[in-house]
Amino acid sequence: MPNRVCDILDIDHPILQGGMTWVSDASLASAVSNGGGLGIIGAGAMPAALLQGEIRKTRDLTGRPFGVNLIMINPEFERQLEVVMAEAPPVVTLGAVQSTAIIPELKSRGIKVLPVVAAAAIARRAEQYGADAVIAEGTESGGHIGETTTMVLTPLISRTVDIPVIAAGGIASGGAVAAVFALGAEGVQLGTRFVVAEECTVHAAVKEKFLKAGDRATVVTARSIGYPVRTIKNKLATSYSAWEKKYMAGECTAMDVENLGLGKLREAMCEGNVRDGSIMAGQCVALVEKAQPAAEIIAEIIAEAEAVARDLPSRMVLSR
Amino acid sequence: MPNRVCDILDIDHPILQGGMTWVSDASLASAVSNGGGLGIIGAGAMPAALLQGEIRKTRDLTGRPFGVNLIMINPEFERQLEVVMAEAPPVVTLGAVQSTAIIPELKSRGIKVLPVVAAAAIARRAEQYGADAVIAEGTESGGHIGETTTMVLTPLISRTVDIPVIAAGGIASGGAVAAVFALGAEGVQLGTRFVVAEECTVHAAVKEKFLKAGDRATVVTARSIGYPVRTIKNKLATSYSAWEKKYMAGECTAMDVENLGLGKLREAMCEGNVRDGSIMAGQCVALVEKAQPAAEIIAEIIAEAEAVARDLPSRMVLSR
Repeated sequence: MPNRVCDILDIDHPILQGGMTWVSDASLASAVSNGGGLGIIGAGAMPAALLQGEIRKTRDLTGRPFGVNLIMINPEFERQLEVVMAEAPPVVTLGAVQSTAIIPELKSRGIKVLPVVAAAAIARRAEQYGADAVIAEGTESGGHIGETTTMVLTPLISRTVDIPVIAAGGIASGGAVAAVFALGAEGVQLGTRFVVAEECTVHAAVKEKFLKAGDRATVVTARSIGYPVRTIKNKLATSYSAWEKKYMAGECTAMDVENLGLGKLREAMCEGNVRDGSIMAGQCVALVEKAQPAAEIIAEIIAEAEAVARDLPSRMVLSR
Repeated sequence: MPNRVCDILDIDHPILQGGMTWVSDASLASAVSNGGGLGIIGAGAMPAALLQGEIRKTRDLTGRPFGVNLIMINPEFERQLEVVMAEAPPVVTLGAVQSTAIIPELKSRGIKVLPVVAAAAIARRAEQYGADAVIAEGTESGGHIGETTTMVLTPLISRTVDIPVIAAGGIASGGAVAAVFALGAEGVQLGTRFVVAEECTVHAAVKEKFLKAGDRATVVTARSIGYPVRTIKNKLATSYSAWEKKYMAGECTAMDVENLGLGKLREAMCEGNVRDGSIMAGQCVALVEKAQPAAEIIAEIIAEAEAVARDLPSRMVLSR
């Protein structure tokens, strides 16, 4: 049986590396693509010229397909889109989809388009507008999140659309890959586990935080203003709580809360200020235990998933 | 290969019906046990004499093992515990575990004890105090919840303890059963799906709400006061938001927020006031589609799970 995600994206393994702002640059993306998965550059708030540079660098570092993640609510979005239309990377994943009209626009350049969705209605609309697949992202993910968990969202989206569903959120091992395939997924997207990849250029202090994190390490901030974001708990996360309290009391605006995060992701990820910066991470950071080359992460996850799937019929005894 | 959950609880299928206050009485619990799973009476805030009646009624309706769910922070808890020690139901599941000393106390009466846990540290402590298994409950569950999702919590708890892990939260179909077994679980607990069981005595208006609910149907209230509860969105849930805002502004106490829920679960579940009552439900309410006898739900889930596990090795193609 073929795998539709591999076929559509022209990759060897249906494993995508989630686009992560200030984290997944040409170095990580090319390493993942060279490992047979799909590396994805996180455009985030990157100036358009810088994004263009990362796309070209990735092309230098790998002959395999790769992607760019664009966040539509980003102020740089229009300029980034121009670069993407000109450079035409093989794949674009879309966060915070505001208008589905962008899908045919990107496809006109031969780009495969994968919206990131957190609800069934959005997935249905994305399919209608020609999306090649959808990435169903559970609330356990890092960064900007929806409310539904991977365990519920994966089967829900799978029965809503006919295009392939790539599950994201909470996946850090082969067992989780087998689990989401059992729920109807045909591919996976991992962010958190790839942060500790050797080729990831994130600051060493961030990697250390990831490797040490336990199951209560993450917290959701800015839920009160309607833009929930999952990060590792630190001084910044605590100050969000204080400001959100003020916001609820009508003593400051939603913009004041939002502004707390300005430049903070870069401060953590690039400069290593893990106290005052924003360390976006998924809940599965608790399961991330060792730094490895990206290709080794992919190979290990595949071997684990296949072993789990092979043993499942004999291990899952449901009647005695 | 034997199933440890079946062996420990002396049941045919490792499928537990979650204890649900004002929902899982003798009628539902006995139907689940008669179907080969483990039916569980939700003691909740039930007066001790009423609980005793339900335990005895369950014994009349089934010769199979069944359980009682006790919530330790409940004001009726001490009196309920006396009844449970006297009646000695085969199994007790423990919510909101405040003290692990209760585990050996219950075990001294020959009762199997299964704490409901939402974090690795609590699971480890429960095992040390003699718990027979733990129920790892993800945040997608209905009612009182923790923060970690089933996708992350199941592998985390599975590698933390040696006793069997029963996964709960987000499980409404056989695919999800296969998924949590792939993550290390040896049994499952379902609440939401059993609410629409024919033998469930909950008000018809509640069942209708469950059958119609989509993926944005639930909301978490009272998170601001530290006791998050997942319910179906309605007028009561909206008034929680308003009061929580007041609480954040220092204009009312946490107790004021808590008191909003007083008697409201009973009002919804027993009287059918789905507008002003508290309709506790898990996120997987979106996946619940038909009313069936409890035994049929169990049989259907097992058949689905086995089919999914059987097909997984050929369906999960990770390399081309």
